Amino acid sequence: MIQASDPARAPLRVSCIQFEPQFGDVAANIARASDLIRAAAAEGSGLIVLPELASTGYVFESEAEAASLAEPVPDGPTSRAWAALAAELGVHIVAGIAERADGPLYNAAVIVGPQGYIGTYRKAHLWDQENVFFAKGDLGFPVFETVLGKIGVAICYDGWFPETFRQLALGGAEIVCIPTNWVPMPDQPAGEAAMANTLHRAAAHTNGLFIACADRVGVERGQPFEGQSLIIGPKGWPLAGPASRDRTETLSAVVDLDEAGRKDLNTFNSLLRDRRTDIYG
Amino acid sequence: MIQASDPARAPLRVSCIQFEPQFGDVAANIARASDLIRAAAAEGSGLIVLPELASTGYVFESEAEAASLAEPVPDGPTSRAWAALAAELGVHIVAGIAERADGPLYNAAVIVGPQGYIGTYRKAHLWDQENVFFAKGDLGFPVFETVLGKIGVAICYDGWFPETFRQLALGGAEIVCIPTNWVPMPDQPAGEAAMANTLHRAAAHTNGLFIACADRVGVERGQPFEGQSLIIGPKGWPLAGPASRDRTETLSAVVDLDEAGRKDLNTFNSLLRDRRTDIYG
Repeated sequence: MIQASDPARAPLRVSCIQFEPQFGDVAANIARASDLIRAAAAEGSGLIVLPELASTGYVFESEAEAASLAEPVPDGPTSRAWAALAAELGVHIVAGIAERADGPLYNAAVIVGPQGYIGTYRKAHLWDQENVFFAKGDLGFPVFETVLGKIGVAICYDGWFPETFRQLALGGAEIVCIPTNWVPMPDQPAGEAAMANTLHRAAAHTNGLFIACADRVGVERGQPFEGQSLIIGPKGWPLAGPASRDRTETLSAVVDLDEAGRKDLNTFNSLLRDRRTDIYG
Repeated sequence: MIQASDPARAPLRVSCIQFEPQFGDVAANIARASDLIRAAAAEGSGLIVLPELASTGYVFESEAEAASLAEPVPDGPTSRAWAALAAELGVHIVAGIAERADGPLYNAAVIVGPQGYIGTYRKAHLWDQENVFFAKGDLGFPVFETVLGKIGVAICYDGWFPETFRQLALGGAEIVCIPTNWVPMPDQPAGEAAMANTLHRAAAHTNGLFIACADRVGVERGQPFEGQSLIIGPKGWPLAGPASRDRTETLSAVVDLDEAGRKDLNTFNSLLRDRRTDIYG
């Protein structure tokens, strides 16, 4: 059990890197993201989140194209690059990646730290054409126990399912890192922040945990992305962001992950204990 | 099955009555709310929502005091008053009420229509001192099939549990009526809309249903209430409100409940069907 007195539990600077991957140019995307990761680490960040499919881009045109860009995790070049950077800089990185397993492809995230590979998450809820290219995640919602704290991961459309955050909270997650590629909603009123911001603020509040969303920007093969990356505290209020809709930027906040352990609201109420499992299982 | 072609499915005007009950003065509260209900009906409202514990007030000082103000449902004077008014005006009313059953008290809501009593909901998740005065709801999350459509009910702190809305959505609810007594949060940034607004917008969006929240205002025995009643469409955007923090007002919106039946997002995705029940049950 990690204790508050553990020196590794000093306040943690979390950064979400919002940038514009170039479709198919894995080497360039790794190079660009590495520059941004170095800059975040130089400012003291210990946990750095990249967008969904950060190294490949998002808009695949065929399964063959997706397969040609996907890589084994953790033994492919992209995972190795992140692990090497994490070791060099002494940081943890959560990065969206197209994973080629023995057969199926997954829309996944790799988690690495100074000691190397920590784990993989595979997106459980696939959006639209992703269902053509990827298999549904088959690893559940693991919580990774690291020296920083207990880290959960979800990807984009996973955030549309409150069950995602409940599962992670019940599993002990203190922070949920969200590599994402949010797309604008056609019926979004002008000037409104992304609906995604609303969903994730609600999830943080109702589960009493931190959420760090790293979105991408830009237009890829005609598909615009939403930006508005956000870091949210366990009461549901933004700690940093939302970021812009269209610019590369790094959003950072200093967090005390111990706050996620304080689920009691008063003498009678506690966020997870109050669930009426006798009614809804 | 109610069909869109049913004349009863003409656009429905929903009203949330935000007012200030006077503690313990049941007759005065019924009279005041009746005036407001009559005014809403005169403007064409067919479904009218009152706050939590609208006829008694909220801040009980003892179980005996709560018991003295609670009434049987539907045979107590308050339920009979709402049923008579619903029959006279040809409207449906959802009203928060302190229910005295055979033994325990419940923080409940009564649903009445032009034909009389329709049903009762008992608050499943009790907040703070309510645990002293009330028993936990034992009726699950019923969905009431009315000529207007399928109506679910939840009360205040129930809305902090995404499971509440999931249960109601899976039960077919098209609109969830929320009698509530939201209290301000001490850590709410100045100028922010109520966190409750965020939670309910997320719930409407992720379940594709309408939500109508009727809050109270005023300060009762030192406890301020939050106002900011809100009517939300099935995409999660406000249709009316948020109302003021401190004034009596009636919030109304015309809704097409058929929209709540449209859960498909694209060729591949549908809000409820996409749940990974193989992972989270």
